[in-house]
Amino acid sequence: MSKQTKISNAVIQRLPRYRRYLNELKKKGVDKISSGEFSHLTGYTASQIRQDLNNFGGFGQQGYGYSVEGLYNEISAILGLDKGYKMVVAGAGHLGQAIVNHTYYYKTGFIVTGIFDVNPDLIGTTINGIRVMDYENIVEFVEENNIDIGVICTPKETAQEVADKLCFAGVDGLWNFAPVDIETPSYVATENVHITDSLHSLAYHMNKNREAANKK
Amino acid sequence: MSKQTKISNAVIQRLPRYRRYLNELKKKGVDKISSGEFSHLTGYTASQIRQDLNNFGGFGQQGYGYSVEGLYNEISAILGLDKGYKMVVAGAGHLGQAIVNHTYYYKTGFIVTGIFDVNPDLIGTTINGIRVMDYENIVEFVEENNIDIGVICTPKETAQEVADKLCFAGVDGLWNFAPVDIETPSYVATENVHITDSLHSLAYHMNKNREAANKK
Repeated sequence: MSKQTKISNAVIQRLPRYRRYLNELKKKGVDKISSGEFSHLTGYTASQIRQDLNNFGGFGQQGYGYSVEGLYNEISAILGLDKGYKMVVAGAGHLGQAIVNHTYYYKTGFIVTGIFDVNPDLIGTTINGIRVMDYENIVEFVEENNIDIGVICTPKETAQEVADKLCFAGVDGLWNFAPVDIETPSYVATENVHITDSLHSLAYHMNKNREAANKK
Repeated sequence: MSKQTKISNAVIQRLPRYRRYLNELKKKGVDKISSGEFSHLTGYTASQIRQDLNNFGGFGQQGYGYSVEGLYNEISAILGLDKGYKMVVAGAGHLGQAIVNHTYYYKTGFIVTGIFDVNPDLIGTTINGIRVMDYENIVEFVEENNIDIGVICTPKETAQEVADKLCFAGVDGLWNFAPVDIETPSYVATENVHITDSLHSLAYHMNKNREAANKK
């Protein structure tokens, strides 16, 4: 497996997208797909796709293409989606609630087992059947329940402190929604989700279209 | 401006990140930064950064580096963040609520002016002072108020239909949170936000770390 540790993050970020398209094909009953067709569908070049998948051993067959279900399963396994993960959510505001209520995570093995907040009005309420607990007890809960992932839905100002606490308690991954890049020890995987970046890209493309249409 | 239309989407996606780092530097009172330092901070190579910025005319000065505030303002203008945008949110569930409540958008000129739902229990309630209206009236509202952006926070199943309606009503951009890639006419800019992709990348990196630590 040592070869895999050299794979660039850009490749890893494309795998979930490939998997989404394969899932749609599976649902439509498509059995196999050529790299050309898959390129057309995903918007990546066929050579890019082949190069990405060759990092993991290929999977395509000359003159046949890819088995949709086979490739879907391989990518799922590469990403580790054949395993289950226990998550806690720090912050029971709207974003935390949206995540706790999102059935997708449960269906795919990401189970929210606890939600925490500092607000006494929220502590003791339930969200999607899960009780909101006092943030003071988050370390104990993570330790006792072998939590894999901490989801940070707190304000920007407290995100790093919450991250430090979750790392101390022993999570292996942090999924951060606070609009700040949090820093963690190298043994804790971290994804900082910056939703607003896509809004800014959207603004750019809107303005380009407007300029092209002379609307501005 | 015709040169700019050829700029790849990958470049455009990096600009909001550059801007975030520049904003942090501004807040820390940093006046100027070398491309080497900026590379270290952002994780992109200095040559990549120079190449990206050269698409828009450069901005750096030999032997000086970049003016933090100057570059921040330039990137803001390139992205169109010096303008204001009016948004409507379709779907008043938890995600829609999180967006309507997110003060960041208001501070940066993205103003939510209407929120719509089909659920009679939600219609007539207010979120962050904004009344939830009947989804039946969304086209009329968008037309009358010259709405720029539609934010789709509906279930996957209805996302495309909502997108079609918003395009018909005249929005110039769609920011889609439903877990499906929606299709729109070329003159409507669209960003499909797939939050779960980053959770899948996170799972990959966690498993790599675990393998490296022989924990598994």
